[in-house]
Formats: sequence, C-alpha cells, structure tokens
Amino acid sequence: MFTLHPKLAADTLLLGDFPLSHCLLMNDMHYPWLILVPRRESLREIFELDIEDQQQLLRESSWISERLSTHFNADKINIGALGNMVVQLHLHHVARYENDAAWPGPVWGKHPAQAYTTDNLAMMQGRLREAFSDADEMQFVWKD
Amino acid sequence: MFTLHPKLAADTLLLGDFPLSHCLLMNDMHYPWLILVPRRESLREIFELDIEDQQQLLRESSWISERLSTHFNADKINIGALGNMVVQLHLHHVARYENDAAWPGPVWGKHPAQAYTTDNLAMMQGRLREAFSDADEMQFVWKD
Repeated sequence: MFTLHPKLAADTLLLGDFPLSHCLLMNDMHYPWLILVPRRESLREIFELDIEDQQQLLRESSWISERLSTHFNADKINIGALGNMVVQLHLHHVARYENDAAWPGPVWGKHPAQAYTTDNLAMMQGRLREAFSDADEMQFVWKD
Repeated sequence: MFTLHPKLAADTLLLGDFPLSHCLLMNDMHYPWLILVPRRESLREIFELDIEDQQQLLRESSWISERLSTHFNADKINIGALGNMVVQLHLHHVARYENDAAWPGPVWGKHPAQAYTTDNLAMMQGRLREAFSDADEMQFVWKD
C-alpha cells in the first residue's frame, strides 16, 4: 500500500494524479515548484522502479517540465531526485529565474519555504489550471 | 555538431561513451560523481530531447545510478539536471553518504571541488572499471 510521506504531505498541496504519480505543488512562493511522487511502495531510487514505470515517470516529468518552462516563462527548469531527508522517491521540478531567491544555486536547503497566502495560492492554482489545460492527453485527474 | 561545453570539459574526466551520452567523472574527491551529457547539439532541457533519446538517457542514468549505489555502497543517489550555470544539458549522479561533506544538503554550490590526486584518481578509475565491468550490455565504450 502506497502512502504519501507525511513530510511531503505537510509541505505540499496535492494537485492531482498522473497514471503513475501524485503531482504536488510545493508550498513555497519563492518558485513555481512541482513534485512527482510515484504511487509505488517503499521506493527510494528511480532505478528501483520497473522499466515501464521509469518510462512513465519520465513522460510525466517531461510533460510538466515543458509546461513549467513555457507557461511560467522560466529561464531554466531544475529537476532533482535527492531524497537525503525524505527517503520516499520524489522528483522535484522547479521553474528557475535569473532573479529568483537562490539563483544560480540550487533551491534545496537555501531559503526556508514561504507558504502561499490565500490570494497567491488562488492565483497560482489558476495559472496551473491554464498550464495543465491539455492534461487530458496525459490522463491527468485533478483532485476533486 | 556536438561539442562538450568547455566548463564541463575542464571540471571532469571523460570515462567513455554510452550510445547517447558522454559519461564524465567529476574531478571532485568529495563524492563519487558521474555526469551524463547527451551528444546532441544546443539542448538545455531533458524535454527537448526526442522521445527515444529521453528514454535512452533514462536507461543510461538508471544503469550508472544502480552501479554507483551498489559498487560504492552509497546511502543515497542524488540525480540532478540543473544547468543554471552551464546551460548545456547534463545530468548529475552523485553517490551520497550520511557522513559526506554536504550531507544532507545538495552537493551543488556547497564546497569547492577537491581535485583528485594521481593516486586517488587511479584508485577511483579502478573502482569504476569494476563497477562498469558489465558495461558491454549498455554498449558502453571506454575512452581509449
């Protein structure tokens, strides 16, 4: 049985589900930041997924990367699978800007997360709805 | 025409080639650290590769991740595609240990690289030869 790690659940908002992965919004206004968590039990590394799941994770990853890049006008997408602190396999996707808080360094461990305000969260969700407007092609299912 | 970015060339040692990517050893004794660079021109993001190349990159990535994990007894593999400073698409694979210099933070931007000494480099290359002993299955070709 897959259960989302409590630290990931606490730090994020569940947007919805791809066929393999939960798609989470990191609750940090510093950067547009999505996290994919394959709904598979007790995995820590990408290579531990079976081959089909690895390829599906890549499809989901590239799909959201492209949308972050284009709809959020990112200067660069940063992708990372670290898991030094939260061992459950999860894949970060961060839209980076040359004037963002951590540029050109990595975002992890740099600044404490700044939680979305109600207004900012509503705006962000609106932008994500737009960026994900063709998410049907990926069999993405929005949460409620 | 693909040319390796001069910064990547300066910071690493070319081990050899997978069908898609150069496999580079980062010249930093702090961590066993391999970098894959797809030999494709002017790419910055994984999603810019065509689908077949994306899947091949993942195969190469998972293959070296598994070898780093098992042959180097890593506590965790960190994988990252950042490219904020060197824009040419490259994918980091770092064997992490709970007692390493940057744990549990990311390795990027933490400590200046510590170049291998001649002896340490020879030892590292020996370990990599062993870890890559079945690299034929991946059509890996050692440099000279």
